[in-house]
Amino acid sequence: MSKSRIEAFTDGVVAIIITILVLDLKLPEQHTWAALWQMRMPFVVYVASFLMIAEIWNFHHQMFAAVEKTDAHVLWANMNLLFWMSLIPAVTAWYGTDIFARPSAVLYALIVLPFNISFIILNHAVQHANQLSTKEGISADSERRNQWSLIINVLVIIITFFFPPFALLSMVLNVIIWLIPLRRVRR
Amino acid sequence: MSKSRIEAFTDGVVAIIITILVLDLKLPEQHTWAALWQMRMPFVVYVASFLMIAEIWNFHHQMFAAVEKTDAHVLWANMNLLFWMSLIPAVTAWYGTDIFARPSAVLYALIVLPFNISFIILNHAVQHANQLSTKEGISADSERRNQWSLIINVLVIIITFFFPPFALLSMVLNVIIWLIPLRRVRR
Amino acid sequence: MSKSRIEAFTDGVVAIIITILVLDLKLPEQHTWAALWQMRMPFVVYVASFLMIAEIWNFHHQMFAAVEKTDAHVLWANMNLLFWMSLIPAVTAWYGTDIFARPSAVLYALIVLPFNISFIILNHAVQHANQLSTKEGISADSERRNQWSLIINVLVIIITFFFPPFALLSMVLNVIIWLIPLRRVRR
Amino acid sequence: MSKSRIEAFTDGVVAIIITILVLDLKLPEQHTWAALWQMRMPFVVYVASFLMIAEIWNFHHQMFAAVEKTDAHVLWANMNLLFWMSLIPAVTAWYGTDIFARPSAVLYALIVLPFNISFIILNHAVQHANQLSTKEGISADSERRNQWSLIINVLVIIITFFFPPFALLSMVLNVIIWLIPLRRVRR
Repeated sequence: MSKSRIEAFTDGVVAIIITILVLDLKLPEQHTWAALWQMRMPFVVYVASFLMIAEIWNFHHQMFAAVEKTDAHVLWANMNLLFWMSLIPAVTAWYGTDIFARPSAVLYALIVLPFNISFIILNHAVQHANQLSTKEGISADSERRNQWSLIINVLVIIITFFFPPFALLSMVLNVIIWLIPLRRVRR
Repeated sequence: MSKSRIEAFTDGVVAIIITILVLDLKLPEQHTWAALWQMRMPFVVYVASFLMIAEIWNFHHQMFAAVEKTDAHVLWANMNLLFWMSLIPAVTAWYGTDIFARPSAVLYALIVLPFNISFIILNHAVQHANQLSTKEGISADSERRNQWSLIINVLVIIITFFFPPFALLSMVLNVIIWLIPLRRVRR
Repeated sequence: MSKSRIEAFTDGVVAIIITILVLDLKLPEQHTWAALWQMRMPFVVYVASFLMIAEIWNFHHQMFAAVEKTDAHVLWANMNLLFWMSLIPAVTAWYGTDIFARPSAVLYALIVLPFNISFIILNHAVQHANQLSTKEGISADSERRNQWSLIINVLVIIITFFFPPFALLSMVLNVIIWLIPLRRVRR
Repeated sequence: MSKSRIEAFTDGVVAIIITILVLDLKLPEQHTWAALWQMRMPFVVYVASFLMIAEIWNFHHQMFAAVEKTDAHVLWANMNLLFWMSLIPAVTAWYGTDIFARPSAVLYALIVLPFNISFIILNHAVQHANQLSTKEGISADSERRNQWSLIINVLVIIITFFFPPFALLSMVLNVIIWLIPLRRVRR
């Protein structure tokens, strides 16, 4: 199986998801400053989701830079990641219209968990396909960060249940957790 | 004709189709758990269609891995496949809103047939373009599976006519039929 | 300027246009056979536009197969082509809802003209950039066909003005005009 | 980090943005010439935004042609550019429906500023990653033009505040500023 076609397909899907995210950010019918001001929360939630998707793509990019061989397990672990990513626009739009409502906030906090788990699965598939040491997938450093992120995200869901706007902070926290180490890994 | 441009175009179209599928999965206006629960059937139908498209892309990927030359026949056989794929989001959205209605269920069961036929056509075009034995397209093993899938899908349409929710099972069945042999083909 | 990035960008835009075409093919709210039957004309118009875009991509593919160098003129001649292509979904949706209305039919017949002209411009840009004989762009044979297509399309607009459904036939005619010679050019 | 994957992702995102721009150009329900004529201003604004995005892609294309290495800074500077680009369709649709309204006009004039700034940031990131002279990013000539464009755009916002339709002219001006030098840089 060709690594480049899996990358190209992933790039295509992520590019579309990050773009249709904005389709739900419909500007109001009335052309007033007040109507524009009403858009501030959906806009902030949009920014948080945009950063999240950018970060996921970036992480995928880093993981696949080390990949030489792919197999059916890698392909389907990757499809699993794309599936969860495809749900972000709908969940973002729902949360953005009312960040104080509990169901949409919990859903928005929940949507981050599958990425922690998907990357663990994808990392194992990648390591298995390349039949080498654990150094060939994401680094041990990245894996530790992923586990930290998972723990934090479970806590966030509990807090969000009692204080819905906290879900927004969760997205920002995740992006920060993943951004910091980038500076060390950079080549 | 360049194989890589046909692959890139196909990847682009499939990436968009698998993503716009989710555009019809609009979360409700009210922010309640009851409203979210109402989304369960459209969501399950969405998952089934997502898996179906992922499986079709995967099969296309495998078929083209063996391709060296392409010609106008391959290009148009591929366009034919993309055409039928482009109808999946609309049909999925229609079926998802009411899985007990007969017309949308029969349509959802019917939409699988063109893929069985399209892959037979594409396989012949690929084999002809590469002017070699039948081993250069999909394997004889894959072709037999495609014929089995075709027979099952015709039966599914008949059952769906009398029991509409069966169409959903059909999608899942198809994905399983196509998934099993992957393990053997994997390199 | 890199030929491959212009091709990749074109493939991306065409893949999206051919896919969002289907977004306007919304299946009805009621789940009845009668409601589905109402969709027959929008569906036929959708098929015609799908074939047209597939044919344009195919022709672009053939033209660029002969290209070695690109410059700013090629890039903008290509952007011009993409611009006109981007209008097809909206025009298709308008015509599809009522093929007997004159304004939408004339618009649908008119939308084909820019492609005849855009390909003439793009062909000149490609030939100039590669500073070789006229054989390096599309062949003289293809150019003659393009001119025939242009003449036919002007006639179609006049007929469409008096008999709107004729615009649909125009699309089918164009696809046939462009398809026939493919068999001779095939390598 | 691979330059080609950043390019491919960028091409995908820009291809989608330039295409979903047209989704907001919905043709009217009535099939009359009068209804079509009502679309003239949204159409002109659409053309201006299309040219703007084409020009941004073109400039990105030129900048990355000189790039050999990329790092996390380049990736995020590029994501920043894509973020601002993703807002163009919504802002275009808002302005297009009423070019005499002040809030939408100022927003439409404002949306150009981030590109001037984003390209300055991206240019620095690119130059830093390639650890060479300033000649490796965009040329000094291009940078001067970018600064001119920035000054003009600030002036345009002020004028737009008092005369909203001026924002449309701003887009056209920007495209012209960026187009002229292309002829000299062409290889």
